Amino acid sequence: MSEAAEPTNQPPTEQPEAEGQNGPSKSELKKRAKAAEKEKKAAEKAAKQQEMAAQKSAAEVDYAAEFYGTLPLHQSQSRPHRPRVDIASLPSRDGETVLLRARIHNSRAQGSKMVFLNLRQRIESVQALMIVAPEKVSKQMLKWAAGLATESIVLVEGVVKKSPEIIKSATVGTVEVEVSKLFLISGVEARLPFTVEDADRTEAEIEASGDQFNRVLLDTRLNNRVIDLRSQTNQAIFKLQAALGDLFRQFLHSNGFIEIHSPKLQGAATESGASVFKVSYFKGGAFLAQSPQLAKQMAIAADFERVYEIGPVFRAEDSNTHRHLTEFMGLDLEMTIEEHYHEVMEMLDGLFISIFHGLREKYKKEIDVVNKQFPAEEFKWREGPDGTLKLSFREAVDLLVEDGVAREDLDDINTENEKRLGRIVRAKYETDYYIIDKFPMELRPFYTMPDPNDPTLSNSYDFFMRGEEILSGAQRIHDPKLLEQQMRNKGIDPESMKGYLDGFRFGCSPHGGGGIGLERVLMLFLKLNNIRRASLFPRDPKRLEP
Amino acid sequence: MSEAAEPTNQPPTEQPEAEGQNGPSKSELKKRAKAAEKEKKAAEKAAKQQEMAAQKSAAEVDYAAEFYGTLPLHQSQSRPHRPRVDIASLPSRDGETVLLRARIHNSRAQGSKMVFLNLRQRIESVQALMIVAPEKVSKQMLKWAAGLATESIVLVEGVVKKSPEIIKSATVGTVEVEVSKLFLISGVEARLPFTVEDADRTEAEIEASGDQFNRVLLDTRLNNRVIDLRSQTNQAIFKLQAALGDLFRQFLHSNGFIEIHSPKLQGAATESGASVFKVSYFKGGAFLAQSPQLAKQMAIAADFERVYEIGPVFRAEDSNTHRHLTEFMGLDLEMTIEEHYHEVMEMLDGLFISIFHGLREKYKKEIDVVNKQFPAEEFKWREGPDGTLKLSFREAVDLLVEDGVAREDLDDINTENEKRLGRIVRAKYETDYYIIDKFPMELRPFYTMPDPNDPTLSNSYDFFMRGEEILSGAQRIHDPKLLEQQMRNKGIDPESMKGYLDGFRFGCSPHGGGGIGLERVLMLFLKLNNIRRASLFPRDPKRLEP
Repeated sequence: MSEAAEPTNQPPTEQPEAEGQNGPSKSELKKRAKAAEKEKKAAEKAAKQQEMAAQKSAAEVDYAAEFYGTLPLHQSQSRPHRPRVDIASLPSRDGETVLLRARIHNSRAQGSKMVFLNLRQRIESVQALMIVAPEKVSKQMLKWAAGLATESIVLVEGVVKKSPEIIKSATVGTVEVEVSKLFLISGVEARLPFTVEDADRTEAEIEASGDQFNRVLLDTRLNNRVIDLRSQTNQAIFKLQAALGDLFRQFLHSNGFIEIHSPKLQGAATESGASVFKVSYFKGGAFLAQSPQLAKQMAIAADFERVYEIGPVFRAEDSNTHRHLTEFMGLDLEMTIEEHYHEVMEMLDGLFISIFHGLREKYKKEIDVVNKQFPAEEFKWREGPDGTLKLSFREAVDLLVEDGVAREDLDDINTENEKRLGRIVRAKYETDYYIIDKFPMELRPFYTMPDPNDPTLSNSYDFFMRGEEILSGAQRIHDPKLLEQQMRNKGIDPESMKGYLDGFRFGCSPHGGGGIGLERVLMLFLKLNNIRRASLFPRDPKRLEP
Repeated sequence: MSEAAEPTNQPPTEQPEAEGQNGPSKSELKKRAKAAEKEKKAAEKAAKQQEMAAQKSAAEVDYAAEFYGTLPLHQSQSRPHRPRVDIASLPSRDGETVLLRARIHNSRAQGSKMVFLNLRQRIESVQALMIVAPEKVSKQMLKWAAGLATESIVLVEGVVKKSPEIIKSATVGTVEVEVSKLFLISGVEARLPFTVEDADRTEAEIEASGDQFNRVLLDTRLNNRVIDLRSQTNQAIFKLQAALGDLFRQFLHSNGFIEIHSPKLQGAATESGASVFKVSYFKGGAFLAQSPQLAKQMAIAADFERVYEIGPVFRAEDSNTHRHLTEFMGLDLEMTIEEHYHEVMEMLDGLFISIFHGLREKYKKEIDVVNKQFPAEEFKWREGPDGTLKLSFREAVDLLVEDGVAREDLDDINTENEKRLGRIVRAKYETDYYIIDKFPMELRPFYTMPDPNDPTLSNSYDFFMRGEEILSGAQRIHDPKLLEQQMRNKGIDPESMKGYLDGFRFGCSPHGGGGIGLERVLMLFLKLNNIRRASLFPRDPKRLEP
């Protein structure tokens, strides 16, 4: 707006002087020039500011806006059928543009132009990097990526490139992914109680760090099991747990066994009343099966010949030890005997040997992963002409006595002496796996068949790994009269087990079997030292969650 | 005693006359001769009797005594390593002397010289015959064999011979076994409530007999399940049950799933409080899991990617129907979703198709055995370009409305309408197997993901066989906020499921899955009409035994 056009409120007396015939005064002219100059500078400044703002605004338009961000809640909105790949397959995809879903294991910004993301899928990880580049990766995109929380799940598009040097922090170290797009599928909405990196750290690493790293205690892990289970170690442990079940079934299937499923709800407290969980059952009560023992024997009485079951078994024992759970997976089998119960013992032995072989040959990678965190002497077993070491209970006792244990303490072999025996056996016979046969009758349950020559002994056996019992088994009594008598001897009312006894009254083949604790085998093979580590969501007298 | 030596009480007056100088009188001589003659005959008779007795006694020495009898209680007394054979292998053993253990399915004596034994091993049987022969089979042996009770377990030695004509009463009809030795391994000590022959008889046979045969009712069978399970039909049913589990695992294993085992003991009554069994747990309480739903979702939150579980599930519903059990086997799976929940639905579809194929191709013999007693139209499914029939819930409702059901009765599809839909679908689409997708949100549990476009619908599906539901599944909510909100909507306190919710708070991939009832699939595939027939030892609100 020009000053001349400015409406004036000056009094009329001044007006003639101001723009009279004489024109403006000198001082007035000087004043005007000064104002004009000021005006000009302001206009210039404004123009400059305007230009700068325009420049700045132009710079802030994010050319990468469509290449990153949080996806809407995945409700199956569309289905483009675009393949996504596994991290494990990346080394063979050099040069390809790939799409993959993964966790952010960790991330590290390098200056303002580059961020490294360690992407994880189960036991595999790969390094991804994002570099600011015109028209591709904006600074805004980089900043957003660097701010993503550890454990976020992202959808990544990028190009696979040979890495200049092997990347040691990733399992797939020969390639890396140069990220072109990055979207958040699922974020982290709570503070992590520990990171998966912490969970996977070895004791050696923690010690080497001068205890700078967080040592995640077992209870913390179990309280936050979902995060704990994401660790490489746990991914490997539970792959091995599944493998163990598969190997169990494969061996038995190829030996003519069929799988059965027996009820866990029982009308009577069987075997021994002390350690059974009671269930409210409509207007009455029921009990949880302590084992499929009775059912699998009834399957034999029903001519199934060879049966196995994989199912939960429940023990209401208030045992708070490294090797007891109130609920664990029983791998049970039962088979008819033609001539001698050693047929069963040998079948079980063959089963274990086949499991050990299968694990070592097909799952070496997973075993190695676990060994990093749980270093252990390699599990040893015997094969060839000697085969598995088989000791009689008496011989086992003699070994302990030779080693200095008082014989009078060895009516039974307690946990401590079991472990001692394990050490003796490993030193003397170079095996972590062995069988003890012919237990005293009084140590075994009522359904155990007595030895034909010495009624104080029984046709029963336990199997051991690293000095701990992993299987208990025997020939069973198939004669209803002897069975009833043995029940009475152990204070059990035969009437309370009528359905079971009936099976034998209508004719039953001689038979035997055994029950294996899945978590124990896994714990001892891998030397995990606590059975809770071998159970997905362990249950003990003090833990029912998560 | 000779008559002459007989002391006489005759008076002395007669004595001189009797043996005086004149010798014996004529009458006396005559009398003596008569007596002597009598005496001779008696002696001859006695000798003859003695000889006959000796002869008879000689005849009674049992030359076959070592070829039969009751064996001592089998306590693994010895181990001769003598192979025993299966009945199924006999046709290839013509002329061989074989040893086998079997049940006596039935026996029939023909006169006093021959007995027929029908020997049974599981679903196989063969005719054995025993014929009296000098030095080999004695009459005593035959009598003993003919007296053995049905269902006795025997050890048989005999020669395999081509049978003169096909024996229809045995499954192996081309050969028979001529028995040379027969021993009792295990006898029958109680009256059989029914025979296995009765258990296997078809309704047609019973009707043809004018109801002369014993019709064994389901309750009688279940009360005496050990005998009932010996029937051919049941041997086949439970072989098929095991096969179903194997096929389930094989398919999932080849699709990258791993098996998990989740605890059945739960700290909180999850999903819905109404139908959960309560357990006494030391000084507190626990609940039996109604499904592995929460655990398998937590496994997904723990990056297991694809998991399955085969395990018992418990339902405290007082439902006394043909298709409800209080404990049944759940075949559960859960997997991450990349783009769309139909990835899961298609995986499940592929699973069922592979199970149907596997059963029909590898277990035709067992299916045929079951069909004899449970005749059914062959199970039909669709393949090829059309693939499995997939209806939306809305389309399913429309089909029922077209068929005459009032639309206002179809907010949900009840059991009756489900079956009706099954009939409509079979008539119209020639399939017994189909999927209904997109159920109304209000019919599904809190963890079901809503449809992205219509919040009254959900990303969920049920699978059906012969008009009955066998699988229920859906995409699940992986967003903790939406999940909490849905919990509250259904009246569940999120605090009570903290461990479950935490899994999602720490990031979780989109995922979905389904749960299959093993016994239902088996019942419907074979058309057994009652789910109890598909369970080894079924449990319902009224049955906890045997």
